Amino acid sequence: MKIGVYGLGRFGSFWAASLAKRYPVVGYNRSPMRMSPAGVPVVPLDELFSCDTIILCVAISSFRQVLKEIAPRLRPGMLVMDTCSVKIYPASVMEKVLPEEIEIIATHPMFGPDSGKDGIAGLPLVFSPIRCKDSTVTLWRSLFNEMQLNVIEMSCDQHDREAAYSQGITHFIGRVLDELHLAPTQLATLGYRRLMSIVEQTCNDPIQLFYDLQRYNPYAHDMRLKLNTALDTMLSVLDQYDPGDRDLR
Amino acid sequence: MKIGVYGLGRFGSFWAASLAKRYPVVGYNRSPMRMSPAGVPVVPLDELFSCDTIILCVAISSFRQVLKEIAPRLRPGMLVMDTCSVKIYPASVMEKVLPEEIEIIATHPMFGPDSGKDGIAGLPLVFSPIRCKDSTVTLWRSLFNEMQLNVIEMSCDQHDREAAYSQGITHFIGRVLDELHLAPTQLATLGYRRLMSIVEQTCNDPIQLFYDLQRYNPYAHDMRLKLNTALDTMLSVLDQYDPGDRDLR
Repeated sequence: MKIGVYGLGRFGSFWAASLAKRYPVVGYNRSPMRMSPAGVPVVPLDELFSCDTIILCVAISSFRQVLKEIAPRLRPGMLVMDTCSVKIYPASVMEKVLPEEIEIIATHPMFGPDSGKDGIAGLPLVFSPIRCKDSTVTLWRSLFNEMQLNVIEMSCDQHDREAAYSQGITHFIGRVLDELHLAPTQLATLGYRRLMSIVEQTCNDPIQLFYDLQRYNPYAHDMRLKLNTALDTMLSVLDQYDPGDRDLR
Repeated sequence: MKIGVYGLGRFGSFWAASLAKRYPVVGYNRSPMRMSPAGVPVVPLDELFSCDTIILCVAISSFRQVLKEIAPRLRPGMLVMDTCSVKIYPASVMEKVLPEEIEIIATHPMFGPDSGKDGIAGLPLVFSPIRCKDSTVTLWRSLFNEMQLNVIEMSCDQHDREAAYSQGITHFIGRVLDELHLAPTQLATLGYRRLMSIVEQTCNDPIQLFYDLQRYNPYAHDMRLKLNTALDTMLSVLDQYDPGDRDLR
């Protein structure tokens, strides 16, 4: 068994190096790499396709294009796995673009070089078999379990619904608050310091990931509308019951 | 020197008991108390006014009414201190309602029974002398310093401006998110768990305190409008650059 990781950006490099601690891994990147990830030989595209399993680590917004390019070069029986932070969209694209003889598992490793800097044991990986043999599911579930990951099996639909109202809303609020350029203050309460750390952490991720999370998760639009409605409700409640006591110098 | 605390609600009881660890304190409450705070005899209103210093621990929205009731009973030379979570409004009301011979210091102890449950050493107290002798300022600054509080001297205006964009925005977001009834999920990231803890903590405070903070801080309205504008901006950015790739099953 050999794993080929397509896309060695920030996350792809981290994930390839993590897998390479236990399994044979090679990597490919469209633009040349200055340094290869630890334990991961960087190979030409032809050599990548000699692997049994291809793991895609590309931006959600590039996903369909990359998949169309590689589809004709895959061999029957190969397994393709995505790692996108949304799941319905890439699963649907993989099912349509990849030939019938290719097996498909959708995954979302919910960590990266920051959260996984002290190791990935115990961290969550969402695992959603789309089109494959039972033996392939059993194999990969046990490989991820051996890496001590917290393997969460759920449907792509459930993933996107829950992610919109957890990761999605957190990143949206982080980006909205960033617009206000909030400053540190001597008056900072614990809650405010937590809010500041959310802004800092979410704005540390590439803006493209933010846009992709918000646009390619079909529940994100609804989440943003609900948040907007809740804000409008709260604004009008505060205006309605105005004390009128405006003795504010 | 004897301190009289007017208002033995959740915060008033805590503050009276904290002061009583070092100084003689009596307390008064409009409705009868089942239990008096540790070290604080609960006394009738007449006896409260035998103190040299009266500390008011009443809701911001009741502040003017309470002050009008007690003003005729104060003796020249007494010191009145408020503890409201906004500062411009109570300082202005105290200056207008209290006779010239009464000294005034505005304070905001930025803690309570939750944050101060393991002691109040190091916690911030905003301290803003409004109308009093230098010797009174020196005395009280040193009394609070002896309690190991972090005494922050700032104007009422600066307090309200900075509080609107720290404590105020945190509580506003907490209440808005509470409307969405966010649920725990296996997919919870660190950022989401921090967001959930902000909701929990802010909604633990009485709703009246939330309304008062938002309505009696003259900068809070502007903060809410700016937040609303930032949210609208982000919503329209996301709609404008829609990928159009709507292959979402």
